[in-house]
Amino acid sequence: MTETSAFRTDRYELTMVDAAIQSGTAARECQFEAFARHLPSGRRYGIVAGTGRLLDLIRAFRFTDAELTWLRDNRVVREPTIAWLADYAFRGTIWGYREGEAYFPGSPLITVDGTFAECVILETLILSVLNYDSSVASAAARMVSVSLGRPLAEMGSRRTGEYSGVAAARAAYIAGFASTSNLEAGRSWGVPTMGTAAHSFTLLHDSEEDAFRAQIAAFGPATTLLVDTFDVAAGIELAVRVAGPALGSIRIDSGDLPTRVAEARSQLDSLGAVNTHITVTSDLDEFSIAALSASPVDAFGVGTSVVTGSGSPAAGMVYKLVAHRDDAGDWVPVAKTSPAKSSVGGRKRAVRRLDSAGIARAEVVLIGEDPADSTPPAEPSGRDRVLLVPLITDGVIDESYLGAAGTTRARAHHAAVMQELPIEAFRLGRGDPVIPTLYR
Amino acid sequence: MTETSAFRTDRYELTMVDAAIQSGTAARECQFEAFARHLPSGRRYGIVAGTGRLLDLIRAFRFTDAELTWLRDNRVVREPTIAWLADYAFRGTIWGYREGEAYFPGSPLITVDGTFAECVILETLILSVLNYDSSVASAAARMVSVSLGRPLAEMGSRRTGEYSGVAAARAAYIAGFASTSNLEAGRSWGVPTMGTAAHSFTLLHDSEEDAFRAQIAAFGPATTLLVDTFDVAAGIELAVRVAGPALGSIRIDSGDLPTRVAEARSQLDSLGAVNTHITVTSDLDEFSIAALSASPVDAFGVGTSVVTGSGSPAAGMVYKLVAHRDDAGDWVPVAKTSPAKSSVGGRKRAVRRLDSAGIARAEVVLIGEDPADSTPPAEPSGRDRVLLVPLITDGVIDESYLGAAGTTRARAHHAAVMQELPIEAFRLGRGDPVIPTLYR
Repeated sequence: MTETSAFRTDRYELTMVDAAIQSGTAARECQFEAFARHLPSGRRYGIVAGTGRLLDLIRAFRFTDAELTWLRDNRVVREPTIAWLADYAFRGTIWGYREGEAYFPGSPLITVDGTFAECVILETLILSVLNYDSSVASAAARMVSVSLGRPLAEMGSRRTGEYSGVAAARAAYIAGFASTSNLEAGRSWGVPTMGTAAHSFTLLHDSEEDAFRAQIAAFGPATTLLVDTFDVAAGIELAVRVAGPALGSIRIDSGDLPTRVAEARSQLDSLGAVNTHITVTSDLDEFSIAALSASPVDAFGVGTSVVTGSGSPAAGMVYKLVAHRDDAGDWVPVAKTSPAKSSVGGRKRAVRRLDSAGIARAEVVLIGEDPADSTPPAEPSGRDRVLLVPLITDGVIDESYLGAAGTTRARAHHAAVMQELPIEAFRLGRGDPVIPTLYR
Repeated sequence: MTETSAFRTDRYELTMVDAAIQSGTAARECQFEAFARHLPSGRRYGIVAGTGRLLDLIRAFRFTDAELTWLRDNRVVREPTIAWLADYAFRGTIWGYREGEAYFPGSPLITVDGTFAECVILETLILSVLNYDSSVASAAARMVSVSLGRPLAEMGSRRTGEYSGVAAARAAYIAGFASTSNLEAGRSWGVPTMGTAAHSFTLLHDSEEDAFRAQIAAFGPATTLLVDTFDVAAGIELAVRVAGPALGSIRIDSGDLPTRVAEARSQLDSLGAVNTHITVTSDLDEFSIAALSASPVDAFGVGTSVVTGSGSPAAGMVYKLVAHRDDAGDWVPVAKTSPAKSSVGGRKRAVRRLDSAGIARAEVVLIGEDPADSTPPAEPSGRDRVLLVPLITDGVIDESYLGAAGTTRARAHHAAVMQELPIEAFRLGRGDPVIPTLYR
């Protein structure tokens, strides 16, 4: 498939290329970096997501005749730039934090090496993908950490843009969700899909009993019946009567959940449906999931809060020029000095410093070093884990990060990373980043 | 173009169709309705957006062999349903609020008539588009209302999913923004595009002066120079020295804006650049724009807050079955009774009640009436404006709502609607919906 991604881009990326081609600076070798100045308010850590999608989109970042004609007709750039765009493909090198990795303020999440023009033009796309997907993954990881091992399903496609729903399902899965309602996320990224019926299915039928019978006829008694269209207690009684004690699950989507879930469990047990699970799905977020810690919930469905980053719908990442080579071939660190928006110049690599128990104690950003240097500067008392891996080398994408396989790999990496974080990371209350960022 | 939109959908829409086909209820004639139970917290009105995009996406909602094979291989639905999906195209009728219209709690924003199966399957898509686009338009309208006629540019593509950025640019434009940074929104929807350069362009060059000279060589002195990479006062002095007093605009992206803007204006005037405009772009939202009311700002650029709905990233719309025909052909209103999530059953139409001065006083929802009835139930003292218009009739889309022309039309309708709202609607403070919703 892959229509071009080149126009999901800010106009100024192209006008900068145009002016730089004219001034003779377009081919200067540069390094750009994506990072977040802060975590979302009160969060203890963030989770990187979107990388696997981004690599596909960078590959699809091509200007076809349709784009070139539009740019010419609208006088966005001039002919030498049109010619350059017609030939565009990213031929530089990108290092990045692995997808699923934890990050902190100043972590150099993506470093992009190449000519000014070929790097700057990817800015909007890189930030769109990282900001949205990381916002979802960062919220999802918190929900997983308070779910006490009970599975979470992402069901928020209807609460975000129709393409973002696919990205959100994938990001939540990487951060530990078990499944999604979104079919495209199943097809494109291998995320397990789930879902049975909504209230409309019950209301379509002449009675709740007709609806339950229809659903069980279609999917067998192991299905999930939605029992709160009218009265929950009557709905549960009916569900067990129709499905028998082999009923797979009931779903409750309204009301005061701790009370309702406790009552539902008692009722199910008294009806002999001791193995019937209880799924809840009513405007849940990390706080309401935590409030259900002691309730006999078997599974959670989460919508709005996960796909909108639970109060932080954009991760706040920025993309900055940090160094360029001068005419003598030496790297020159550059940084703006705008108040509260200053950046740290220079090429960088990063390691996570672990103590002797394997617990993260600091994010160490090594300034002026080459990302390709994999020597960890370990301190005697612990070890350092190298954070940047090559994603694209001289224009060639590492295929192992792509597709369903890359998504599975990111999910596994995330699970390992979470074991490394200090326990304080998992408190939901507001606080500072759980480890400091040290610049060396 | 138009790849199929059918998989950007929740799995349960398909399993409901599957069960209903098996139970013989799939062809029941139904009416579904999209509405919002509440406005986002503290808002006085909401703005409907997404309709023009949605109609395109409904047309593209087709199951090709690729989707059918995946559904079969993954045993999502069975063969009779596969056959039904293969033939799917929406052949029913959709009425809706015009794009750009104001809405209130309970406003029947979209009514969808057709068989159960053909209507229910559109649920996820309808809600994704309306929820996201309306969230952006609702936030954008508030920003426009406090901008005192100064133009706003949408620049948030990098702060939302890479497709959502296009939708956001379009929604903000409908709600009164003047332009966008997003190229695809320019190409697909006719939104004016803007943008010149980022800090990286300055940092690329050996000096700020080199960068300014390069930009002016490319775009002439009428361009916008970004003056805050290092020191703002020095940047402005340099900008006017390089461009001359014909400099089009300076952009300030950091610092305490009221102070900086006042200083910048004085400095520009003292340098003779009395016609040079000042554009500001630093994490603006409706509140910071309002705080600049008395400042000599000429244009605003808004990013994160507009594309994420300024605190309300999903508009909270739901899609409910409200009526179906019984075997005798009569409409039966249906509604769930779940606490705090109950819905109002019955087919509906809606009018906005205006007083003799043409100011909106109530949203009147007429229950049990046919959307096709255009007779306003006017009260003697005023007049009623009919809110629902036919968008799709027996499967045929009204083309006048599509594309750039439909977007322009929505923007004009929005501007007219805003003139009708009571003045209290434009206070930024939290409050109730500015007019009540009356059910009749």
